[in-house]
Amino acid sequence: MKIRKVLVTAANPRQRTLPLQTLIDQRGEPKTALQIILEEASGAGVEEFGVVICPGDEAAYAGACGNLRSQVRFIVQETARGYGHAVLCGRPFVGDESFLHLVGDHLHVSHAPATCARQLLEVATTEDSPVSAVQPTRESQLTSFGAVGGRLVGGARPLYQVEAVLEKPTPTAAEQQLIVPGLRAGFYLCFFGMHVLGPEIFSLLEEHQRAAPDGPLGLSPALHTLAARRRYLAFTVAGRRFDIGAPYGLLFAQLALSLAGRDRDRVLTQLVELLALRHE
Amino acid sequence: MKIRKVLVTAANPRQRTLPLQTLIDQRGEPKTALQIILEEASGAGVEEFGVVICPGDEAAYAGACGNLRSQVRFIVQETARGYGHAVLCGRPFVGDESFLHLVGDHLHVSHAPATCARQLLEVATTEDSPVSAVQPTRESQLTSFGAVGGRLVGGARPLYQVEAVLEKPTPTAAEQQLIVPGLRAGFYLCFFGMHVLGPEIFSLLEEHQRAAPDGPLGLSPALHTLAARRRYLAFTVAGRRFDIGAPYGLLFAQLALSLAGRDRDRVLTQLVELLALRHE
Repeated sequence: MKIRKVLVTAANPRQRTLPLQTLIDQRGEPKTALQIILEEASGAGVEEFGVVICPGDEAAYAGACGNLRSQVRFIVQETARGYGHAVLCGRPFVGDESFLHLVGDHLHVSHAPATCARQLLEVATTEDSPVSAVQPTRESQLTSFGAVGGRLVGGARPLYQVEAVLEKPTPTAAEQQLIVPGLRAGFYLCFFGMHVLGPEIFSLLEEHQRAAPDGPLGLSPALHTLAARRRYLAFTVAGRRFDIGAPYGLLFAQLALSLAGRDRDRVLTQLVELLALRHE
Repeated sequence: MKIRKVLVTAANPRQRTLPLQTLIDQRGEPKTALQIILEEASGAGVEEFGVVICPGDEAAYAGACGNLRSQVRFIVQETARGYGHAVLCGRPFVGDESFLHLVGDHLHVSHAPATCARQLLEVATTEDSPVSAVQPTRESQLTSFGAVGGRLVGGARPLYQVEAVLEKPTPTAAEQQLIVPGLRAGFYLCFFGMHVLGPEIFSLLEEHQRAAPDGPLGLSPALHTLAARRRYLAFTVAGRRFDIGAPYGLLFAQLALSLAGRDRDRVLTQLVELLALRHE
């Protein structure tokens, strides 16, 4: 399984300006969030970039792509019919191959020498299976994420065979359906905003769309069906995701990037200075 | 002296996207940097807002004004002829009255109950004089700011009569011309991005423009002339400026806003969590 394409969704009307925000990356270079996301994929060997956007956003997004501009194709989601529908809009771009999927409002900081996307692609290739990156996440944050239940299959590696996927489950639903043996109490495996999926996801999304043509189309229900029909894995990446759409998400994404990067000492020094400041 | 107008300069082509960045203000509300700047002025009693912008930026800036949109007039600086020229573009908007001047790439966090702009306006009104806010600034940062020399006139208050203004002085020039008695060694009084000026500044800018019609027009040379001709003050505001165009400027502006605001505890908690994170 060779992954050549990434599909980035950035068409949520409430989040359309997030990928345009400027941050400083781990090398100390100012970049838009979109650029950092595209480079996460590019660093993992991806060559073609598809970005699903709202109507009217192409010019602003094109200006925010940096060096990768010429390899990026924009896909307009004409109406806001949900996250799953945005993924489905990418079908003509993706075609009949497996692909990396990233969301436009998450940034990733690896705790290992390999980037998060590279870690995930290695697992997908070795296992020859669709695989979603997950992160053990406090119960109190279940309202923000899709979450999976499953059983450990990786031996020493934090690799799980997914048995259920619920979008933003209640704590009760999570406790009944998403308990994962071996995880700390009160923690669940929530999505990391990073998946390797095969083209069968598009048929599943269409299936769900036909079943409920009027509602918004999610991705999690289609992944739940995927888990019922074939081997579908979840992998705890060595790293952390930062939802830049969450309150203070951009702040902590920037801090995490800086503290894991070239300017660590400089940022730590300024941080301590700020914390030590007396308010006269 | 009643200050009814603010002139914000945001026409530096290298910094045009800064005022559009999203932050969370001290009350915990997501806002653009431009909105935070406009509200700094509005909270000090200003009623009319003029923003000098680059050609083509009006739509993006109009969308970033928040509730104050209807009170904002945009002034296009057709060619990038310097910061002083951008101020001069504001002449028709300002007319024949004193005004508050803020720069579009600085955010301010007060260490007192009154905001920084309100502190400055109180001094300008009491003293009935143009006055620039200043902040004692390390010598190493002189390359980023205009700086003033002068003598203490405020008695107990940190108020100075300005005798010289230099833009981004070398350490040698600063040592020769800008020593301020009473300041910590190695520190200079640098601009805070906040001034109350009278309409005479426009004539002085024109004078400097006539003298060197081809070069970029600065504000500091005109302020230097102002100091030679009339009483012109500098005031150390109880607060801090954050240059969001500096490396990590946006990060530390956000941190300072949060740590001085409603969400202090929440942000401190997350900060400690991030710092404590072990990289497995």
